[in-house]
Amino acid sequence: MGDYNESVVLDAIRRHPEGLSRVELATSTGLSAQTVSNICRRLLDQGLARESGKQSTGSGKPRTLLQVAPGARYAVGVHLDPAVITYVLLDLLGTVVAQHSGTTPRGVDTELVTADMAAAVTSLVERAGVERARVLGVGVAAPGPVDLDAGLVIDPPELPSWGSVPLRDRLAAATGYPVLLDKDVIAAIVAERWAGAATESRNSLFFYLGTGSGMGLVVDDTVLRGSSGNVGEVGGLGAACTTRALVEEAIELGVLGPERTPAGPQDAERGLERLAGLAAAGDPDAGGIIDRWAMRIGRGVCAAATLLDSDTIVFGGPVWPLLADRLLAVIEPMVTRSPFVRRIHPTLVTSTAIGENVAAVGAACLVLDNTLSARPGSLLLA
Amino acid sequence: MGDYNESVVLDAIRRHPEGLSRVELATSTGLSAQTVSNICRRLLDQGLARESGKQSTGSGKPRTLLQVAPGARYAVGVHLDPAVITYVLLDLLGTVVAQHSGTTPRGVDTELVTADMAAAVTSLVERAGVERARVLGVGVAAPGPVDLDAGLVIDPPELPSWGSVPLRDRLAAATGYPVLLDKDVIAAIVAERWAGAATESRNSLFFYLGTGSGMGLVVDDTVLRGSSGNVGEVGGLGAACTTRALVEEAIELGVLGPERTPAGPQDAERGLERLAGLAAAGDPDAGGIIDRWAMRIGRGVCAAATLLDSDTIVFGGPVWPLLADRLLAVIEPMVTRSPFVRRIHPTLVTSTAIGENVAAVGAACLVLDNTLSARPGSLLLA
Repeated sequence: MGDYNESVVLDAIRRHPEGLSRVELATSTGLSAQTVSNICRRLLDQGLARESGKQSTGSGKPRTLLQVAPGARYAVGVHLDPAVITYVLLDLLGTVVAQHSGTTPRGVDTELVTADMAAAVTSLVERAGVERARVLGVGVAAPGPVDLDAGLVIDPPELPSWGSVPLRDRLAAATGYPVLLDKDVIAAIVAERWAGAATESRNSLFFYLGTGSGMGLVVDDTVLRGSSGNVGEVGGLGAACTTRALVEEAIELGVLGPERTPAGPQDAERGLERLAGLAAAGDPDAGGIIDRWAMRIGRGVCAAATLLDSDTIVFGGPVWPLLADRLLAVIEPMVTRSPFVRRIHPTLVTSTAIGENVAAVGAACLVLDNTLSARPGSLLLA
Repeated sequence: MGDYNESVVLDAIRRHPEGLSRVELATSTGLSAQTVSNICRRLLDQGLARESGKQSTGSGKPRTLLQVAPGARYAVGVHLDPAVITYVLLDLLGTVVAQHSGTTPRGVDTELVTADMAAAVTSLVERAGVERARVLGVGVAAPGPVDLDAGLVIDPPELPSWGSVPLRDRLAAATGYPVLLDKDVIAAIVAERWAGAATESRNSLFFYLGTGSGMGLVVDDTVLRGSSGNVGEVGGLGAACTTRALVEEAIELGVLGPERTPAGPQDAERGLERLAGLAAAGDPDAGGIIDRWAMRIGRGVCAAATLLDSDTIVFGGPVWPLLADRLLAVIEPMVTRSPFVRRIHPTLVTSTAIGENVAAVGAACLVLDNTLSARPGSLLLA
């Protein structure tokens, strides 16, 4: 799929699942009718597109519609979360056609962990009955910090025994697929931009709430990665807004009863579940702790949205659904009342449209994006 | 200069003021020898480049070197600061060949102010003896907020009577030149990236210290602008790090003597000058206030550099030179010790290489950049 104009056409039709005519394609891409016609021929020959009925045009003869053939290609997404590893298989339209998840092993050698991840990828594709040759590659969403150029995950705070792990290259060697690595928060915004809550925005921010927290950032229609792929670390924003921080505070204040500090990410998530349950049952102390936490998150989000002139703020991540309504009720008014955010343009505040698997779906979207999206950079000096 | 490859070649030779041979150009751009040769012919014919002697190659015949002809084209930069308006004229190499500045009028109708600005632009070009036809355009650096698409400056906090002003279009109409508008902090990072302290970095941050403060941001080799051109507002970072805030604190604590709150930006800058003088003379209270202010700035900068994975932090702006050494002595160690910033890569912390006129120079660089830089976006579907 190396041709640039071919990517432009394929991207246009994948954004219109109902189908586009060649005339509409020429209008929307700016390509000539002849070029569009040649490209459509090639896409049909390669099985990437299919004809899907006729469009009546009043006068004139009906126009044949083209659609992406969803099963022509697939991409695997893997999300290595400190608590759970999630695997998804997406078709060319970005639909999840298979998924699998399992508890993240702790205290196990990372060579074994990555070998198991590779086996799970291979098995996911096989059980879905998809030919290997139709799989474009594997995207991996990992907790930071990462070294993007080297494909490393480096000492993730919630995976204490990991050290520096060449996750990208190990998975590529063990699966035989090309592998792309990105930080979990970056994968999440890629998913929302591909097919979620941020498709209409050129300047969006994803606040990711897992065991840790972070932001995925899109500015001027470009996903930001930074000098080492670590864009989105929120530690410097001064807000103790991780799940761990919340649960530790609740324990310290006696709201969760006499309990030990959470040892691993599963403990932290279980603590949050209990706290959310207490708050939902009307416990004012639990509610108060959660609301103060929401304000800290809100301040961090307002600071980032102000700094980056964002117009769309999306919240999600593994623990978001537990508290989404309560947190949004605090954060949304903070954003809309912020003197900086609101001054020039309205700002949308919303929950993920993808759901709990957003980082895994985003990891697969990295692969689809890399293959399908028309990237002028690939044209340089071509 | 519409041709993409021509821009690539021109940009390569402008980055090597000592000259480049056609062979070196082919190597560094990836273009074929024939293409380079044709482009060089055109650049010479248009007077944009000139031949500048021979390069001995040991064996083989000496190679002719090409340089940008600095006087072939010019760009005007205007910096509307709340205290001072600065005008610079840059040649094609980015050298300041003429400049002028004057106090920003207060309480005067903005139609008169912009008419005066236009007259100053015209006069700057005339007095420099530069033909109008050689001037590519005018860049304007304005305090935010702006509306980039509409070319508006909207209620700048330190220009209270301004309201919403169509600065870009007024200057274009009155001067007859194409005009580009950007926020001052964004212009500043453009200058440092063009020829200052950030030329080697793909992920840099400029902390701008004027009457107000803000940041210019480059991530993944791209200048960030955001949904309305207002990237870089630091109000949300929680740090009261404007000059006004510092001077007000000094007055409140009695360090500056019994004095009224600064009315305008000139008052704030004069207050800062006195405070800097006291600190330099060993006044511990003045020094303490400045050091605490430096820590607030440092926390904001660390937060942004962490969020954006920056590897280069540049400080400057109109009031920076007054306190540069004292502020850097506090901020530099904060950055290098930050657990977030230092984890993966070293981070350079430095003062502007352009100086007090950085925003005006950056405004002119916007025009040079727009003309010279090879931007693949301009290729789309061409």
